Amino acid sequence: MKAPELGIKIGLYEHGKRNSIADLGVKVGHSTIIEGESIRTGVTVLLPPVKNPYRERLFASTFVMNGFSKPIGFVQVEELGYIETPIALTNTLGVYTVANAMVKHMIELNPELKSVSPVVMECNDSYLNNIRKLAVGEEHYFEALKNARLDFEEGSVGAGTGMSAFEFKGGIGSSSRVVEIGGEEYTVASLVLANFGRREDLTIAGIPVGLELKDYPGRGTSGRGSISIVVATDAPLTARQLGRLARRAIIGLARTGGYAYHGSGDVVLAFSTAQTVPLDKEAHLLSFLPDNALSRLFRAAAEATEEAIINALLQARTIEGNGRVRYALPPERVLRILKNYGMTGPGLISPQSE
Amino acid sequence: MKAPELGIKIGLYEHGKRNSIADLGVKVGHSTIIEGESIRTGVTVLLPPVKNPYRERLFASTFVMNGFSKPIGFVQVEELGYIETPIALTNTLGVYTVANAMVKHMIELNPELKSVSPVVMECNDSYLNNIRKLAVGEEHYFEALKNARLDFEEGSVGAGTGMSAFEFKGGIGSSSRVVEIGGEEYTVASLVLANFGRREDLTIAGIPVGLELKDYPGRGTSGRGSISIVVATDAPLTARQLGRLARRAIIGLARTGGYAYHGSGDVVLAFSTAQTVPLDKEAHLLSFLPDNALSRLFRAAAEATEEAIINALLQARTIEGNGRVRYALPPERVLRILKNYGMTGPGLISPQSE
Amino acid sequence: MKAPELGIKIGLYEHGKRNSIADLGVKVGHSTIIEGESIRTGVTVLLPPVKNPYRERLFASTFVMNGFSKPIGFVQVEELGYIETPIALTNTLGVYTVANAMVKHMIELNPELKSVSPVVMECNDSYLNNIRKLAVGEEHYFEALKNARLDFEEGSVGAGTGMSAFEFKGGIGSSSRVVEIGGEEYTVASLVLANFGRREDLTIAGIPVGLELKDYPGRGTSGRGSISIVVATDAPLTARQLGRLARRAIIGLARTGGYAYHGSGDVVLAFSTAQTVPLDKEAHLLSFLPDNALSRLFRAAAEATEEAIINALLQARTIEGNGRVRYALPPERVLRILKNYGMTGPGLISPQSE
Amino acid sequence: MKAPELGIKIGLYEHGKRNSIADLGVKVGHSTIIEGESIRTGVTVLLPPVKNPYRERLFASTFVMNGFSKPIGFVQVEELGYIETPIALTNTLGVYTVANAMVKHMIELNPELKSVSPVVMECNDSYLNNIRKLAVGEEHYFEALKNARLDFEEGSVGAGTGMSAFEFKGGIGSSSRVVEIGGEEYTVASLVLANFGRREDLTIAGIPVGLELKDYPGRGTSGRGSISIVVATDAPLTARQLGRLARRAIIGLARTGGYAYHGSGDVVLAFSTAQTVPLDKEAHLLSFLPDNALSRLFRAAAEATEEAIINALLQARTIEGNGRVRYALPPERVLRILKNYGMTGPGLISPQSE
Repeated sequence: MKAPELGIKIGLYEHGKRNSIADLGVKVGHSTIIEGESIRTGVTVLLPPVKNPYRERLFASTFVMNGFSKPIGFVQVEELGYIETPIALTNTLGVYTVANAMVKHMIELNPELKSVSPVVMECNDSYLNNIRKLAVGEEHYFEALKNARLDFEEGSVGAGTGMSAFEFKGGIGSSSRVVEIGGEEYTVASLVLANFGRREDLTIAGIPVGLELKDYPGRGTSGRGSISIVVATDAPLTARQLGRLARRAIIGLARTGGYAYHGSGDVVLAFSTAQTVPLDKEAHLLSFLPDNALSRLFRAAAEATEEAIINALLQARTIEGNGRVRYALPPERVLRILKNYGMTGPGLISPQSE
Repeated sequence: MKAPELGIKIGLYEHGKRNSIADLGVKVGHSTIIEGESIRTGVTVLLPPVKNPYRERLFASTFVMNGFSKPIGFVQVEELGYIETPIALTNTLGVYTVANAMVKHMIELNPELKSVSPVVMECNDSYLNNIRKLAVGEEHYFEALKNARLDFEEGSVGAGTGMSAFEFKGGIGSSSRVVEIGGEEYTVASLVLANFGRREDLTIAGIPVGLELKDYPGRGTSGRGSISIVVATDAPLTARQLGRLARRAIIGLARTGGYAYHGSGDVVLAFSTAQTVPLDKEAHLLSFLPDNALSRLFRAAAEATEEAIINALLQARTIEGNGRVRYALPPERVLRILKNYGMTGPGLISPQSE
Repeated sequence: MKAPELGIKIGLYEHGKRNSIADLGVKVGHSTIIEGESIRTGVTVLLPPVKNPYRERLFASTFVMNGFSKPIGFVQVEELGYIETPIALTNTLGVYTVANAMVKHMIELNPELKSVSPVVMECNDSYLNNIRKLAVGEEHYFEALKNARLDFEEGSVGAGTGMSAFEFKGGIGSSSRVVEIGGEEYTVASLVLANFGRREDLTIAGIPVGLELKDYPGRGTSGRGSISIVVATDAPLTARQLGRLARRAIIGLARTGGYAYHGSGDVVLAFSTAQTVPLDKEAHLLSFLPDNALSRLFRAAAEATEEAIINALLQARTIEGNGRVRYALPPERVLRILKNYGMTGPGLISPQSE
Repeated sequence: MKAPELGIKIGLYEHGKRNSIADLGVKVGHSTIIEGESIRTGVTVLLPPVKNPYRERLFASTFVMNGFSKPIGFVQVEELGYIETPIALTNTLGVYTVANAMVKHMIELNPELKSVSPVVMECNDSYLNNIRKLAVGEEHYFEALKNARLDFEEGSVGAGTGMSAFEFKGGIGSSSRVVEIGGEEYTVASLVLANFGRREDLTIAGIPVGLELKDYPGRGTSGRGSISIVVATDAPLTARQLGRLARRAIIGLARTGGYAYHGSGDVVLAFSTAQTVPLDKEAHLLSFLPDNALSRLFRAAAEATEEAIINALLQARTIEGNGRVRYALPPERVLRILKNYGMTGPGLISPQSE
């Protein structure tokens, strides 16, 4: 169950219908790779709501909080301000194989294509997964692609299979927020691959849950954390504005107890589904929000990311692998701690005055 | 009183002797400008522990979380990796006057000087201060300079005089942390000019204090927030590493309830007191920590900044100006709220395993 | 006389009607400060074609090739993607005074203004000017403003009064280029404050003029160069695209013999006059060129900047100051050298196939 | 033959013994892939002079002039300031396969490795090569590795096999420069994969050779250019300083007629062989040059890159592929043009006064 279903309210804004990146029409598919004792990894693919992402490019930007990371495609996104492929997540050493699969996917779809810039992000699952075995194959990308749907699973699936967060089982989590700007409703959603954090640092809705659970079994880290965050919105934003939005995801990360330790590669990609990038050479009328309308989107990106991380934890299940075990965060313990701290939910106040 | 004196423990690390940037030998001086009904502003100067900052340059870097800000000197710091003047804080429209005063100060001190890059940062105090009157004069810089000392005042003084935070009285706050790396002790300190935030967002040690105080009187904002953060350390770091450190200050900001709203210019300068930059043209041996030793410094920067912001609030006093009033955060109410949330202090666990 | 009037063709594109930034409707005014034996400096102001730059903001971006420079306002331009004031140029230590004058100018013009981010760029004229005397006053900004016109003077005027380039007299130069994209004509212009370069490096239309003139009298440098470049266009570009355009100015710089030596602060500001930035909070339709239409604009920015630098040299006059002399580049010698190298003009080929 | 062997002097500094990146001890190996009518591609590997690049990390930085490019590993290099693998070059769609091979190479070499960040750069050879066939295999990386040597071939080999430059045959070129700083000699070298430029723009030693050859047969472009540049030095530089050095490579690019057109991804990686990055957690004494000693290195990087590009052209041979032909630049025509322009070589003046 996600945070709201457990009665945990994170932030002030309301979430969207599915409380996930699917609220933007983004489909998500997983390929979960579990083999023998030591392979616990996978691939997750995000499909923006366009038929051919190479022809229907979406405005996008990135933010690198801690570049101890191997994201594929960020240089081009920063220069040109768009994505031209789906977005994939996998383990650190699997990104090149997944990028290759994506190249083949795009070649197949686009007979004229001679250049394409896949976007793949990663975390290091070597605590539970024998990452040196390079278990991710191109077929896993295509399997994830085939599985893409709006009502996708979260937790220990796909790229999240072997991930850890706060020395509990981590993985895939998502959440969304709906805000009103100038009479229009816009949605901001976040999907994270959460694989970072020390146990004591885990903070849920401001409450030091990790400290209270510091003696809960299963501690230990490989010293290699990371979080890859994808933020999507239907607000019409330029790439520059999406860069501003991307940075706010880090506010959400910080509020869960993320410190962007040296070994934790923390990176963000943000894109807008509002309109596609014109492909010809003429001036086009495009719709954009002014910058002074963005504060609610910023807060929404922070809140959605904060909850997405907590959702990744709440939906993960205990996984053994590589001779180790990562326990799922025990929801009943969490709820008890929250109650002990007097948590009643922060209410529904809307920020009027940013 | 600062947070620890009130029994509020923020973060896991211990603070230094003075729990301020003075733990790095940095002296701080204020010039508080209060005139008539509508002038509530000032200048604060930070003097790094060198005799002549233009000759004894310190490695430095910056991070711009939200560049809706007018910092002076950041372009050169990013290129050359050092500061060559004191650091000053003032109001948004006063930065150029203060920079001019600093130029004169450095000219006086250095007969050979023909180029110098002052570092001045700002927040917008126009809620309490009639900023259009341009009350800051060059003499205020020199007065602040003269007042510089290790046991400096915090709160509603100097540049902090007219600042607001979380719709309470904001201003100057500082805090420090001591960490051990490779058998050596290093200190990281933060000094903030806090002028940002919505009331409901104020979070102290993870507890939603602002929400509980949302009906406390004195609300209202000008829509123009900001925070300027100075991080100092005696750890020997390169400019690139100091840039990494600077980014972690934002983790601390986020944990107090900062969202970097559009109108809030949130910027960081970080410097190291460990060694000066050579001035001649020969190769020099300099001491540096490897990057994989930095995690504790990163956390320390986040914690010190988080506490510095709370200290700014706790030490501010109620100020009227410009036809408005900003109430000081009421400490007894804060303590009561914290107790209601069961806060007992997060203990003293040291992060071993980043 | 400018390069084309001397028969020197730089680049392939045609220049606009005035062959200057005035082709975009930008008015330029100078205040030339010559006092006694040692004051040779000034202020130059660029007025974009809007009535109130604070209300009619123009999309803009910057590029810092070598940040040994003290530009004012770049942090905010990078974040928000617009300028909200005129643009001023002056000497290194005068930028804060000029920024102050601009603040007062904008306060006067805008009764509601409580925050404003002036844009001022600089070079160091301390070779001919006793820069430590701080001769630039706020009145010089207002005088330059008053003098602003479309048919402005170039060379040793305004901010260019004391500048040197390639160990000749430098200063203000401008040039423009007209290109056709998708059936529309667009203009790109550059205005430079040129104060950089070693004598031997001066290259005009590819020909090593500086080498041939290496024994021409008046050599010597202060080791403090710089170039500040302003690029303007009427093509409808986003801030991100203007950042791409700004980078191409460096191509032009390089082709004149600029190497961006350590001591030379080389910075660029680019803006578009095509449309103003909306000030309210609703989504707006704005016109933009796709990125794949930009190559001709890129080349135009490089060519206009290359010629602008040469024009600064060709229009400068010999100036004595500070006990030194900077000779004007002798045009007849230049023409002779160009002829000796067989220069016949590179023709008028239009790049079809970028 | 390289430029100097033809009597063409580019820049003012002297080249090193091999006039290539081998002067830094960097070995270069190629795998040239020519199959049937339409496969003309390959892989080039650069081996810095360390035994195990994953354990003996070298300080490094990047610069992205035009990020329409797919470089692998740049995010981590920017964050951590070092490379931990060899550097490979290949075609646009081959980078992921080569990165995979490099991962396997590093896994093999380092039993403890669980994370590694390959550095691979690319250009698009689809004019001569049917890039959609994905001809590059992991075996080509290992073949190139095996072939690595100090006296490596340049021109139409390895990654350069299918590349075009200025509508002539492009490919691999290298050059070096030796400078003296503070009594010490340092070498800066550049190796380029040149695949950019319009015919008319080609400029050799300042002379518009391309214009003179505009009617030489074989014109036509795919609209997809690029240049990948690797700069190496034995000067002890920090990553920040290497970033400054990397930017100067663009000066060299500009002087050959590069305009960084929209479709041309122009990226630079710079590294220093002077010392390795410590791997433990203690403070270390490292040797660094002060920034004010860097001007000669900057110029050397520009000159070496300018000549490296010309060397790529001069050493390429005519290649047919994909139904097209790219002619080698005809050296005798080039020499005749240079003579017609009165080129006598710019002499040997040393820049004293930057």
